[in-house]
Amino acid sequence: MTTRDGCRYQKSGSFSKGLPCSAVIHPPGNIPGSLSDSFDVIVIGAGYAGLTATRDLCNLGYKVLLLEARDRIGGRTYTANVEGHLYEMGGTWVHWGQPHVYHEMHRYGQTRLLNSNDEEIGCQSFTACIDGATTSMSHHEEESIVGKAFEAFCNVDGRSGRRIIPYPHDPHHNPDVRYWETVSAAQRLDQVKHLLDDVQVATLQAFIAAISGNTMENTGFFDILRWWALCGYNVSGLYEYTETYKLAAGQSQFARCFFDEALATRNLRFSFRTPVTAIHDLGDRVTVFGASGQRWMAQRLVCTVPLNVLPQVKFSPAMPPVKAAACREGNVNLGAKVHLEVDGSDLRSWVAAIWPATHIFSCRGDGLTPGGNTHLVSFGANHGLASPQENARQVISELKTIQHMDVHQVVWHNWLEDPFSRGFWCMFPPDYSFRYLYALRERHGNVFFASGDWAYGWRGFIDGAIEEGSRAAKDVADCLGARPSGAGDAGVASSCL
Amino acid sequence: MTTRDGCRYQKSGSFSKGLPCSAVIHPPGNIPGSLSDSFDVIVIGAGYAGLTATRDLCNLGYKVLLLEARDRIGGRTYTANVEGHLYEMGGTWVHWGQPHVYHEMHRYGQTRLLNSNDEEIGCQSFTACIDGATTSMSHHEEESIVGKAFEAFCNVDGRSGRRIIPYPHDPHHNPDVRYWETVSAAQRLDQVKHLLDDVQVATLQAFIAAISGNTMENTGFFDILRWWALCGYNVSGLYEYTETYKLAAGQSQFARCFFDEALATRNLRFSFRTPVTAIHDLGDRVTVFGASGQRWMAQRLVCTVPLNVLPQVKFSPAMPPVKAAACREGNVNLGAKVHLEVDGSDLRSWVAAIWPATHIFSCRGDGLTPGGNTHLVSFGANHGLASPQENARQVISELKTIQHMDVHQVVWHNWLEDPFSRGFWCMFPPDYSFRYLYALRERHGNVFFASGDWAYGWRGFIDGAIEEGSRAAKDVADCLGARPSGAGDAGVASSCL
Repeated sequence: MTTRDGCRYQKSGSFSKGLPCSAVIHPPGNIPGSLSDSFDVIVIGAGYAGLTATRDLCNLGYKVLLLEARDRIGGRTYTANVEGHLYEMGGTWVHWGQPHVYHEMHRYGQTRLLNSNDEEIGCQSFTACIDGATTSMSHHEEESIVGKAFEAFCNVDGRSGRRIIPYPHDPHHNPDVRYWETVSAAQRLDQVKHLLDDVQVATLQAFIAAISGNTMENTGFFDILRWWALCGYNVSGLYEYTETYKLAAGQSQFARCFFDEALATRNLRFSFRTPVTAIHDLGDRVTVFGASGQRWMAQRLVCTVPLNVLPQVKFSPAMPPVKAAACREGNVNLGAKVHLEVDGSDLRSWVAAIWPATHIFSCRGDGLTPGGNTHLVSFGANHGLASPQENARQVISELKTIQHMDVHQVVWHNWLEDPFSRGFWCMFPPDYSFRYLYALRERHGNVFFASGDWAYGWRGFIDGAIEEGSRAAKDVADCLGARPSGAGDAGVASSCL
Repeated sequence: MTTRDGCRYQKSGSFSKGLPCSAVIHPPGNIPGSLSDSFDVIVIGAGYAGLTATRDLCNLGYKVLLLEARDRIGGRTYTANVEGHLYEMGGTWVHWGQPHVYHEMHRYGQTRLLNSNDEEIGCQSFTACIDGATTSMSHHEEESIVGKAFEAFCNVDGRSGRRIIPYPHDPHHNPDVRYWETVSAAQRLDQVKHLLDDVQVATLQAFIAAISGNTMENTGFFDILRWWALCGYNVSGLYEYTETYKLAAGQSQFARCFFDEALATRNLRFSFRTPVTAIHDLGDRVTVFGASGQRWMAQRLVCTVPLNVLPQVKFSPAMPPVKAAACREGNVNLGAKVHLEVDGSDLRSWVAAIWPATHIFSCRGDGLTPGGNTHLVSFGANHGLASPQENARQVISELKTIQHMDVHQVVWHNWLEDPFSRGFWCMFPPDYSFRYLYALRERHGNVFFASGDWAYGWRGFIDGAIEEGSRAAKDVADCLGARPSGAGDAGVASSCL
């Protein structure tokens, strides 16, 4: 199957849209033409939050309708299989210390992992390209530079952040964190840069740009500090949790486990390629309107539409002002992820940081293709004005200025221009989380909101999306009360207003 | 409610059995007198493995019978509420990096944690009692001693164990670990003790004795290395994951969330104070026999009986020889956990290691009682020959030789003499895991085995028990196939032999 999503640019100059992907659902719907039913629950969005909520609610016996704008499951996470090699186009890395995703990986027997940072093969070097000048060194030196830089950056309390964020899954726990939440990454760098040398400062900025997909000024320092805390307050954790372990079978296979389990209950109706335009909560039920004039009804709704896309959906009654404001300010991660296939295995263990950069801030070997070439993954800025072909050529040319490479192809997805994401994994600007996080999580009448964009723990990660889907399913089930299980003595009556 | 479990010894000399505990289920059963039904599934044991399996299967619509020998839920984990203070009598500490337990904590909103190692109050000192001589130092010095000792002990590959156990939840992954799995903790200590000073060696042995509940000779080095790997391959992780964070509401409240959710489905029948003596698998169904001559039938059985108790249950057909041998060798953790309430708050942040010791190897402040006294928790050896009263007096007297304290009361549970546990959290002897782990996990006809004692990841922890309960429920549901959900179009037919 081929999804409409994603792009591929080949050495020959040929460019194509759409990528082979096992996450495509075909046929795209299973709603009978004669359907006039009302559902127990409608779930909007088939990313991990929506898939988890759908699976849990189907398992509990509720009749669920899953609506998805794309032709595939997975949301901002999907796997392209290009010439027998798996490219993760969005969310990729997982870790056994991420509770929600690992719980599910174990449940589905999807625990076989590949190590992106395998250093057995190839040049084993780190290139820092600073102000156009290139220096190469060992990964040991890299870890020392990155370690010193992040340690200085995140050590806000003499305890590497442990006092300020003692519970990484409850990031607002210590009220003293409020100050740090108002500070930008740029402001925090100003406080500590006298402790660091030029290479450390430049590498830090390159890696933070790769993490946040925006400028240091627009990046909330709090989000960098949260990542640090979640990763165990040290730099090896930062590498290990956020860019080391990926699913051997690919994210799309994993996502299918959720979908297939839900389908096997026979409680699931679904419709892909079905964008939603409006949600009307009538008090006793919710009506959802599709872009092609369709209309569906349910008792409750789980909305997993990403933060930056929520303003496109018309809510009636209107969202509370604070939630609406939260959606307007939104996720500042406008970054790009670009895969390259380059000749030979020499760059398998290569890592680069580039600062300042026009297109690419970080690049690293991520695997070998079946033909023995190196798969490089890079993170950078989006340049929406140029054509995709031109962008690909610019990325290649920029990387070639710092490292010789023969590029066979470039594979990527423009998450910023994608109308169903309008941004990448969620990063908050300064002074946002304390003002808006709780509002984003709140239900609005019969509408429950679930997204990795406002998870408590691994916000912006697959883990956070599953956290949220699990929460929404539990909340909806607790509200609906009567579990339509044939085996029980009777439905358990309860109400939840 | 008061459980029959646990003991209390007061300063006055008074001794009592049984402790106030919210995990007691009353009335102890809800099986109608006229019951002649066959169940879909019988679950034996209401510890976390059994509770998780029961909850999942009830949610899926199966008719479940839960049988438990004790008067309470929680198995080797329960919370005694003594004079308004919560004592965790068995399994206690959890961490957000333990995927299965944290996933459930989040789902039930039970994420509020207390920090056992809070160092704000009291003496903030570490006492090492070595060969009867006592030295006091700071926690910073303690961490340095323990860090150096464990780092030397666990650094089997020049990479702190990362190469030998690259995936802590898949501990057999690297075949090179096989050698380390055959080695005892004593043999490993012989290899590294020239790198350590006397205080480091003694402290290491005291802490390993507290971890394993047995001698260095009978403790598999592999299990210590597994803990180390699971904790992030460093000593701060070892503290943080295994003895720092406990549930503010107590484990018994958490366990009730599982039980109450299962009960709310109306698919649950249960019978407490109901030991099981025999399991007969008749091919098309399983019959379970109770100690009072009762008999129940189900299509499938989930057996969560702990490793050291399994030999007491008569299986027909008999267990395969390798599983039977695994049960005979069993869990070597014969350790004891003893709580003390001592006068004042001075010892709140006190930690001690004692080597060699008769009764207690480690002791630490764990909280303050409502009256402002210190709650100390200690780990040591069981001495089944003396009376409980005599044991309590000996523990007090041993601790008093190293630190002045005025003991108000001692609260504990003898897990070794408990006929339903016959040991504490699971630790394997040398040369056991490669021979038996897979056999312990295998189903035997219609009987599925689930216990934290043979989890892949956090074996011996609450997390491992939930991992196993979740696996068993999924396996049983995949086998039974037809989900009796009233809302589905029809049961999904499938078979699993």
